[in-house]
Amino acid sequence: MIKVNENYQKLQASYLFSDIAKRISAFQEAYPDREIIKLGIGDVTRSLPRACIDAFHRAVDEMAQDISFRGYGPEQGYSFLREKIAEHDFKARGADISADEIFISDGAKCDTGNIQEIFASDIRVAIPDPVYPVYVDTNVMAGRTGDFDNGRYKNLVYLESTKENGFVPALPREPADLIYLCFPNNPTGATITKEKLQDWVDFARENKSLILFDAAYEAFMRDDTLPKSIYEVKGACEVAIEFRSFSKTAGFTGTRCAYTVVPKTCMAYDTKGEKHPLHSLWNRRHTTKFNGVSYPVQRAAEAIYSKEGKAQVRELSDYYLKNAALIRQEMTALGFECVGGENSPYIWVDGKTDSWKFFDMLLEKAGVVCTPGAGFGKCGQGYIRISAFNSFENVQKAMSKIKQAISL
Amino acid sequence: MIKVNENYQKLQASYLFSDIAKRISAFQEAYPDREIIKLGIGDVTRSLPRACIDAFHRAVDEMAQDISFRGYGPEQGYSFLREKIAEHDFKARGADISADEIFISDGAKCDTGNIQEIFASDIRVAIPDPVYPVYVDTNVMAGRTGDFDNGRYKNLVYLESTKENGFVPALPREPADLIYLCFPNNPTGATITKEKLQDWVDFARENKSLILFDAAYEAFMRDDTLPKSIYEVKGACEVAIEFRSFSKTAGFTGTRCAYTVVPKTCMAYDTKGEKHPLHSLWNRRHTTKFNGVSYPVQRAAEAIYSKEGKAQVRELSDYYLKNAALIRQEMTALGFECVGGENSPYIWVDGKTDSWKFFDMLLEKAGVVCTPGAGFGKCGQGYIRISAFNSFENVQKAMSKIKQAISL
Repeated sequence: MIKVNENYQKLQASYLFSDIAKRISAFQEAYPDREIIKLGIGDVTRSLPRACIDAFHRAVDEMAQDISFRGYGPEQGYSFLREKIAEHDFKARGADISADEIFISDGAKCDTGNIQEIFASDIRVAIPDPVYPVYVDTNVMAGRTGDFDNGRYKNLVYLESTKENGFVPALPREPADLIYLCFPNNPTGATITKEKLQDWVDFARENKSLILFDAAYEAFMRDDTLPKSIYEVKGACEVAIEFRSFSKTAGFTGTRCAYTVVPKTCMAYDTKGEKHPLHSLWNRRHTTKFNGVSYPVQRAAEAIYSKEGKAQVRELSDYYLKNAALIRQEMTALGFECVGGENSPYIWVDGKTDSWKFFDMLLEKAGVVCTPGAGFGKCGQGYIRISAFNSFENVQKAMSKIKQAISL
Repeated sequence: MIKVNENYQKLQASYLFSDIAKRISAFQEAYPDREIIKLGIGDVTRSLPRACIDAFHRAVDEMAQDISFRGYGPEQGYSFLREKIAEHDFKARGADISADEIFISDGAKCDTGNIQEIFASDIRVAIPDPVYPVYVDTNVMAGRTGDFDNGRYKNLVYLESTKENGFVPALPREPADLIYLCFPNNPTGATITKEKLQDWVDFARENKSLILFDAAYEAFMRDDTLPKSIYEVKGACEVAIEFRSFSKTAGFTGTRCAYTVVPKTCMAYDTKGEKHPLHSLWNRRHTTKFNGVSYPVQRAAEAIYSKEGKAQVRELSDYYLKNAALIRQEMTALGFECVGGENSPYIWVDGKTDSWKFFDMLLEKAGVVCTPGAGFGKCGQGYIRISAFNSFENVQKAMSKIKQAISL
């Protein structure tokens, strides 16, 4: 008899963003004439940088001629892209990462979701709260948690990010083998200093833990004292895997390209305590279950590192950061405490009421879609996340509608 | 302590095609002037159909303007593509598959590799021998097998495809919960009749098994009495998931687009014997761990179903089938028994000696790369797979070089 993976039955309702989409649909059906401004899901709205478009077209043209046509590429990605990443994203910042430690993929969601496969199922997982749901759900599916009870899964270590700790969780007091961290944070927009990140790396080294560092939002950092990569911190190459994405950096959410860094010095252990390089394990997983990213997409991604590409990408993040500054300023002026929005495209707003209630109010009264903080975990209750990904005009309009709705 | 998934230690050496790539590199280094003709890995060599190129460019242009830009799409794929697939690949052949039963992905390798996640870990898996290595390896990684011993993994049911059964395995005599089938077959090129496929579907219905049907090579079928989809067979919608790919159909190996069909009537069971629709489970997996295929790539794939696209795709498979016919004819003339090459791009040749020995001989004496049958399983020993994916000129040249080498 074919049996299902019963761990799926532990999963809570459907995926957060599907839930939101359903509420929006219901609202649109009820009020077909009302305008809706979406500051919910972190999806970019501006076109791809010109340099990417040009490279994309050139690569499509290559695919049109037998002589320049490309079939299967290396599963790990073409070296033209891996080398540029190593050079510009790491070596230029003093992080000693080489091209063959970089695995190109079609999304950080896939990578952060798939990475847990290379670990044992009886490890102890520590996950921030609030958090991007993928880290939790993929570990639930893999059977690393118990049932969901009173808002939390059993057997998970929750790393609480609260107003009290400035939304940077404290080191766990219980053992944690696999630790997810994300800075600039999704959903809170909080950042971490080099000193605090060093504490985490030291903790991992002392406890033989591994850190999964999600840096998908690094392009929005303007404070240069903050670490863009965990590998800017001493000793991280032995205890950390880093995830990056071109989704937010260069507007690739619909184009799909990301990468994962697995340093060759990064180790895990078998039950006998023997060391195994995670680079080989991930390479085996990646080459067995993945066939590489579309060639024209990799060429488009490569263009981000050209002189024009860099300027255009900077212009993109500057644009969204201008939105973020306006959101933070307006919400603060309305009396809401905010975090994020300075080195990140998200503003985490203390709504002073139930998250979904605040979400429904903003949707119904202002026609503005945000993301209810409770959807990201227990500590997200009472908060909403406002995303800066929209046009400046729409953000202005949304803010004035929220102002009106709140003062009603 | 962070522990590894120890199932990876059961995996045999590295992935077949990486092994071959290494031998080719070694040969090229030793003889830098020798020409090599690759009829090994099933990778297409001809450019994308014109209709796909045009649609690809148009979609890239859409990404260049804010007004037409697309960010995150539906994880399951855009309906413009799902609807065309349902209409042309299924309804037109009398198979009752609807658009929302189709999940667009970036590759059949990913899908056939990931699908096992939604099943329990203690199910009994039946896998053909010889076989595409991904089915086996992904189940080893998931812990569904024992150790590798004497050429086979313990706890797997091997479905032997041999000369005796015409390379269509017999129904298993032991219980099998999850059954992988692939027709036209990779690596043997063999096909299955509707009657024999009906036997498998009936077996699955009687035993509450599930069939994973890999139809990645259906575009090469010219005998219209053969089933292109398992859903042309009665009752299959309740017991089968089907995988398709544009890789070989339309030359998308470097462009990346495929799809999986999970009918809503297809069920699996929990330990209490209660039914669960696999459509919901796969949907949960797909939306949690995947972010959809690149928008321009989906537009390029859609163009396959236009009038010009269809003609161009047909012309592509005709071209490779002409190669296949030549390979089969020449190898037969040289005294080798062959199967495949008529409704498939692969010719399975009985080399009458050790597979790797024959592989090395062809590489060293003829400069021709094939794939050693032993790499696909125990029953592949003694065979080689020759792929028709190359230019007609190269295939002619390869055949004349093989003729010379053999007659030496």
